[in-house]
Amino acid sequence: MSRPLTPALAVDLVIELVDQPDRPIVLIERLNPPPGFALPGGFVDLGERVEDAARREALEETGLEVELKSLLGVYSDPARDARGHTVSIVYLAEASGQPRAGDDAARILVTAHNTLPQLAFDHAKILADYARSRRTR
Amino acid sequence: MSRPLTPALAVDLVIELVDQPDRPIVLIERLNPPPGFALPGGFVDLGERVEDAARREALEETGLEVELKSLLGVYSDPARDARGHTVSIVYLAEASGQPRAGDDAARILVTAHNTLPQLAFDHAKILADYARSRRTR
Repeated sequence: MSRPLTPALAVDLVIELVDQPDRPIVLIERLNPPPGFALPGGFVDLGERVEDAARREALEETGLEVELKSLLGVYSDPARDARGHTVSIVYLAEASGQPRAGDDAARILVTAHNTLPQLAFDHAKILADYARSRRTR
Repeated sequence: MSRPLTPALAVDLVIELVDQPDRPIVLIERLNPPPGFALPGGFVDLGERVEDAARREALEETGLEVELKSLLGVYSDPARDARGHTVSIVYLAEASGQPRAGDDAARILVTAHNTLPQLAFDHAKILADYARSRRTR
């Protein structure tokens, strides 16, 4: 059977730093287009579990070994990534220690979840959904 | 940019029939390989939102207009579909009325969630996770 043509699959993570007051989150400043800040994340490799892709991308981009806590949502608007239709599965994760900018990341920003810079893709929407879920837990 | 090579993306649905006692669920007997019973579902089209794909597949295969209630989980074991690595996003959905076998479905089975036939793919695991979530809600 030929492979069906489906959207590209990515993961993104909202990483809470649980050893800091008020659990700030981790953003990266992107080295590659589109520019701006974004959640850590990237494409899922063929043959890789989605959870493994999430832990791998977090480690590569922030140096953090994260624990995945829950599925925050699935974001699939065909216009959310101008490079082509990409569906992102978004996890809430926890980590401790100091993040360090790695692959694809020019700089790390540790920030309160309610004072955010300009964000790439639909990551402002993802973080608005996250802020709502944070209020109810 | 060339498109990254990522797993194929599918949706599956656990559809509860809310107008029947004890909310039975809907399975289809597959017309295409692999044979056996399965949750309604299928591949997400390029340019299609995942939620729209779920509602479309439910309608095509069961004739039911479903309401998506929650995200049950993401299943991504590379071995879960022998035809190639396919990640499935699984929704819990509700519907009323009588399902009718449509596209890709030889026959419909309406069944209690705790008395299941042999299931294709990893759908037995998905329904075990569903049964656990049903006990805690």
